[in-house]
Amino acid sequence: MARSVTSIDDLSNDEIEAIFRLADRYLVEMGTPGKPFRVQGRSSLAGGLILATLFLEPSTRTRLSFESAMLRLGGECISVADAESTSAAKGETIADTVRVVENYADAIVIRHPYEGAARVAADYADVPVINAGDGAHEHPTQTLCDLYTLRESKKQEGKPVGMEVLRDLNVVLWGDLQHGRTVHSLVYALARFGARIIPLAAPGHAFPEHVGRRLARDYNCLPLSTKDIDALPANALPADVVYVTPDEPHQQALFANAWFALSEKQQAEIRAMRGIDAVYSTRLQRERLEPGEETSDYPTVDARFLKDRRYRDAQVMHPLPRVDELSYDLDRDRRGVYFKQAAYGVPVRMALLAALLELAPDMLRQAPREKEVARYGQATGISCYNARCVTQQLSEQRYLTPRFSIIEAHPLTLRCVYCDHEQTPQVVSRNSTRKYTLGTDDWQRVPLEDLVLFANEDEARRAEHQRKKTPRRDSTASHVVSSE
Amino acid sequence: MARSVTSIDDLSNDEIEAIFRLADRYLVEMGTPGKPFRVQGRSSLAGGLILATLFLEPSTRTRLSFESAMLRLGGECISVADAESTSAAKGETIADTVRVVENYADAIVIRHPYEGAARVAADYADVPVINAGDGAHEHPTQTLCDLYTLRESKKQEGKPVGMEVLRDLNVVLWGDLQHGRTVHSLVYALARFGARIIPLAAPGHAFPEHVGRRLARDYNCLPLSTKDIDALPANALPADVVYVTPDEPHQQALFANAWFALSEKQQAEIRAMRGIDAVYSTRLQRERLEPGEETSDYPTVDARFLKDRRYRDAQVMHPLPRVDELSYDLDRDRRGVYFKQAAYGVPVRMALLAALLELAPDMLRQAPREKEVARYGQATGISCYNARCVTQQLSEQRYLTPRFSIIEAHPLTLRCVYCDHEQTPQVVSRNSTRKYTLGTDDWQRVPLEDLVLFANEDEARRAEHQRKKTPRRDSTASHVVSSE
Amino acid sequence: MARSVTSIDDLSNDEIEAIFRLADRYLVEMGTPGKPFRVQGRSSLAGGLILATLFLEPSTRTRLSFESAMLRLGGECISVADAESTSAAKGETIADTVRVVENYADAIVIRHPYEGAARVAADYADVPVINAGDGAHEHPTQTLCDLYTLRESKKQEGKPVGMEVLRDLNVVLWGDLQHGRTVHSLVYALARFGARIIPLAAPGHAFPEHVGRRLARDYNCLPLSTKDIDALPANALPADVVYVTPDEPHQQALFANAWFALSEKQQAEIRAMRGIDAVYSTRLQRERLEPGEETSDYPTVDARFLKDRRYRDAQVMHPLPRVDELSYDLDRDRRGVYFKQAAYGVPVRMALLAALLELAPDMLRQAPREKEVARYGQATGISCYNARCVTQQLSEQRYLTPRFSIIEAHPLTLRCVYCDHEQTPQVVSRNSTRKYTLGTDDWQRVPLEDLVLFANEDEARRAEHQRKKTPRRDSTASHVVSSE
Repeated sequence: MARSVTSIDDLSNDEIEAIFRLADRYLVEMGTPGKPFRVQGRSSLAGGLILATLFLEPSTRTRLSFESAMLRLGGECISVADAESTSAAKGETIADTVRVVENYADAIVIRHPYEGAARVAADYADVPVINAGDGAHEHPTQTLCDLYTLRESKKQEGKPVGMEVLRDLNVVLWGDLQHGRTVHSLVYALARFGARIIPLAAPGHAFPEHVGRRLARDYNCLPLSTKDIDALPANALPADVVYVTPDEPHQQALFANAWFALSEKQQAEIRAMRGIDAVYSTRLQRERLEPGEETSDYPTVDARFLKDRRYRDAQVMHPLPRVDELSYDLDRDRRGVYFKQAAYGVPVRMALLAALLELAPDMLRQAPREKEVARYGQATGISCYNARCVTQQLSEQRYLTPRFSIIEAHPLTLRCVYCDHEQTPQVVSRNSTRKYTLGTDDWQRVPLEDLVLFANEDEARRAEHQRKKTPRRDSTASHVVSSE
Repeated sequence: MARSVTSIDDLSNDEIEAIFRLADRYLVEMGTPGKPFRVQGRSSLAGGLILATLFLEPSTRTRLSFESAMLRLGGECISVADAESTSAAKGETIADTVRVVENYADAIVIRHPYEGAARVAADYADVPVINAGDGAHEHPTQTLCDLYTLRESKKQEGKPVGMEVLRDLNVVLWGDLQHGRTVHSLVYALARFGARIIPLAAPGHAFPEHVGRRLARDYNCLPLSTKDIDALPANALPADVVYVTPDEPHQQALFANAWFALSEKQQAEIRAMRGIDAVYSTRLQRERLEPGEETSDYPTVDARFLKDRRYRDAQVMHPLPRVDELSYDLDRDRRGVYFKQAAYGVPVRMALLAALLELAPDMLRQAPREKEVARYGQATGISCYNARCVTQQLSEQRYLTPRFSIIEAHPLTLRCVYCDHEQTPQVVSRNSTRKYTLGTDDWQRVPLEDLVLFANEDEARRAEHQRKKTPRRDSTASHVVSSE
Repeated sequence: MARSVTSIDDLSNDEIEAIFRLADRYLVEMGTPGKPFRVQGRSSLAGGLILATLFLEPSTRTRLSFESAMLRLGGECISVADAESTSAAKGETIADTVRVVENYADAIVIRHPYEGAARVAADYADVPVINAGDGAHEHPTQTLCDLYTLRESKKQEGKPVGMEVLRDLNVVLWGDLQHGRTVHSLVYALARFGARIIPLAAPGHAFPEHVGRRLARDYNCLPLSTKDIDALPANALPADVVYVTPDEPHQQALFANAWFALSEKQQAEIRAMRGIDAVYSTRLQRERLEPGEETSDYPTVDARFLKDRRYRDAQVMHPLPRVDELSYDLDRDRRGVYFKQAAYGVPVRMALLAALLELAPDMLRQAPREKEVARYGQATGISCYNARCVTQQLSEQRYLTPRFSIIEAHPLTLRCVYCDHEQTPQVVSRNSTRKYTLGTDDWQRVPLEDLVLFANEDEARRAEHQRKKTPRRDSTASHVVSSE
């Protein structure tokens, strides 16, 4: 099984560091004079290798930077730039697409509207798969570029630095933290490397709850409200990651204002943490809004905003494309690094491709283990409640059944292995007896292969009723309609 | 004039064999360890050559496999993946497109919605043209992959075999045999190599009549109804190709059921022919249905169906993409070879490109002659009745006039050289005298250059009337509007 | 700052000649036997270089010929073939797009619907930018192909000739001269090289006024009406360029007819100028028509039209794609050179790419200076009146402010630096005093940096009113909305 990167968590901290050292090397050996952030020329390292870029959602930057990276490495590309022009328009599933394309290319980059699509692709392909964005879920290579940009910003006198420079950095995440897949991948990575995360969400666009819970559980993040900070003694800020959460995440005012509304003492606390090292601005993901969800007061990062002393040395980052949330007056400001951030896409993606294609030896070790109590998956019973999850799409249900990580035993908590949405089932049942009981306290008494969970009693009752009417089926083939 | 492949009949049996031997060699020399069906690496054979892939209908597999094949050969590609983004949107004709693109590339692969479009492209280009699907007409390189897959399935202990292994194979064709261009190309090829064809069409989607007639006339196929089989003495099945046609091709039940409804004796006959060697399933070509033509009972090939002893060693094939007609429970069944079939697209297309680009010497000899009595073509008179034929499109009529092979003298039978639809004209006329006579018995008394045929008397009368009103024109320039 | 080509005027006559000599060399060294107009094979000159082709409007020929040219030079391509599949669909601006893509490629070719878009791209990119068509504005590489085709047509016995052969050539421009960007670029170039231009526009589709004025002012063209010609003594035609303009450019008859309606004396005059050397036909640019602007009488160039003795040796050219305005009966006429014209796209674009990428030394000298009195640009005041100008698009106004060349001092005449539309402002104002005066006679008394111009008094009054209400802002950041 080839190593794939569908989530930033598919790479360990050491592996990320190794990829960045390789990117450093490409920038030294193939850098553009006067533009140390840009790769030029063509190596022969990936000679004879083909990358397939399958973009079933619009993209310029990500697709072109992957193709540029592969060409700079000496390889070749075949490309799907448009969902309308593909067999997906004829109803082809993700699993089928990758099992065909793996025969035409040595690695696959995929962008897809369904959340978890890249994970499905990786499960079915025998060549490396890279997630270039799966709905609102993750965009791990953007996160690699973001991390690399942060790391570069701390370079002293041109000497390379390691990822330890991210520890205790104060990073403001700004804008649509709800739908932006780039910030979801980024926030986990920042937490892993020990940066302090200061979310300043646009009104109504705070992080989804599951992101907050995951930060706390998996990365030991300590969420602090403004009141918490107020109550802390000076210099008492924790050594570990600080996760500052706004008091009222859905208030109808700019969080930027909320920020400035902090008491002087609170502001002093934050300043004592050193100034803000980076402001990561994101556009409103209009294409993922529900009807009526439009926001009129989306906040803008501009020169005036950055005049605050705390932002004096803040790197202003943005995954691009921007709309109105990042003012053009920053384009010539030394703090505006978003075009460099885009430029780093080439050396960083070159290094990732080289690692996954095993062109650079010993880069990738054992993939990091998921932190889970157990793995749960049944064709019947609870399914992911996220309507955008790949397991909830009719086409993909031809072969996909729900699968969850059991991430907490008590209360029993499931995380969808595809889209990471979490839920707590209320009912335990058994395949063998087909009877259910309310409450999940005793779930570990049931052997995993016999365990069937339900979100609530209604669902369990419906399933029981359904089972009585229809013959039992093989759970892995529940969607097969026989011709007889 | 470069050799082109617009129909599977553009290649002789020997040429197909030569192409397959070259594909064998690519799989040996460039095969992937552990995956003997997949090519890897890059040769330098096609260094300096450019392939243009013009896909004016959606595709993933065919376009990407052609591009992968060209890259693996050492060549380069330029590509149109989307009709909307091309000058076709500005009304450019096929002839003009290829006369431009032939200057930019050394060979052209074209997919186009009009039936016969690839033939037009080949007629106007001076570089080799390959048909990658022209409407519901043909898809000859898919057929090459299909034939290669069948051939490979008969390989003994890894030793290569020749196309003689197809003789007397029992091949079930399953599903939409009406619109599926892949099965049209395939069925002729199977007939040419002596395989027995067992069509199990979905209700309402039997082979078009002209396919059946052509099988009989050009390939000496003997259609047998279930009653015929019943009447045959044991072991009396003909040595040549057997074409088993269902009794009632339009009945509203699954043909699969019809099959099982055969008498025991009939089934014994078929079993005596050896088990089924391959089941070739196809999806319903929804995009080619007329409104209201939708089928609800499209048959599915699944594990249960294949439990019948006759299918014990049947290779399950599918040109992909599949929708619901091929169950995912076959994906791990040893008989499911459809992903291998897709993988063979690369070595087979490499070999075809190498042959047409003359990179491998002496592969292609004289193109096979069309079996025709004579060639007929006049700007006036009978035209192809197939509304999807390239000659029936307003844009292409700027330069194209109808052309037919006279494939039978009595009754006078025409086959459109572009889309292969057949018809029998009822009226003979002369350019010189402009008078017509009913009946075509004496058509050979008129010199070909003076001969004008009409589908029926109405058309002839209308044309006569029209001619009296307008001055005579040069037949090759009938659409020119003078500026005076 | 890299040299870019966004207008044919970005290249001097000497530079065009140098590019053509290099194209000659490619055709000699890489020509196809028997097809001296077609390049084959692959050089290694551009090894390691990547060309980005960004086509945000449909194209086949231009994009594929650029990609073929880059590949033939030994380089690689990354490509956007479809506006829908890009970040432009998410609202990305031209400036941002190129500042990202310049990191992925060594040169950028851009086609864009906004007039002046390529100039914006060139202003913001630090790699060479080539305009492949910006709305109805210019298409300079098509013009290079056109000029090269004209030059080749004058080659004697295969010996190369220089651009001096264009002097005194009689070139008929035929069809939609209003929207056709190709003819706008071409007409300036023809004028620069001293060819005589004979516009025969389709009814209602004469050259826009600004083209005529520019021909007169910048290229010393002498417009002659048919009456003028009539009045001239024999042999009195000027040695310089002759610009024959029809008397009634909007008359509802074919100009072809108007032409033949000339008196015999007029015709004799024209014939005395030698026969027509080339007829350049263009299609009706349907996609740029306003609703109701459709023309039913679009003229067709066909064999009959060309029977006139004056056209005996006329090269029939067309930028393609054609619709009905160029008859297919010319395809085998020796005068029909439009497919060769398309073929020359490869060697000519190879040479241009080689020049801009500095692969061939000393090709490009100092860029030609724009003929202007001064440069004017203010965030307030007059803006371009052309609704299709890039400065008039909401998305681009985030960072773009109007900029004009002052091309005449009296009357004060402005030309938009992006789309070349001209206007004469009526009101002069000052930033410092904020008071305006009617009339522009004294405009040079105001220092340029203080000068604010208005199209008319209404606009000036509105602006004055607006200024009183709002605080003064930095003129380069007028669209920034602060977050406070």
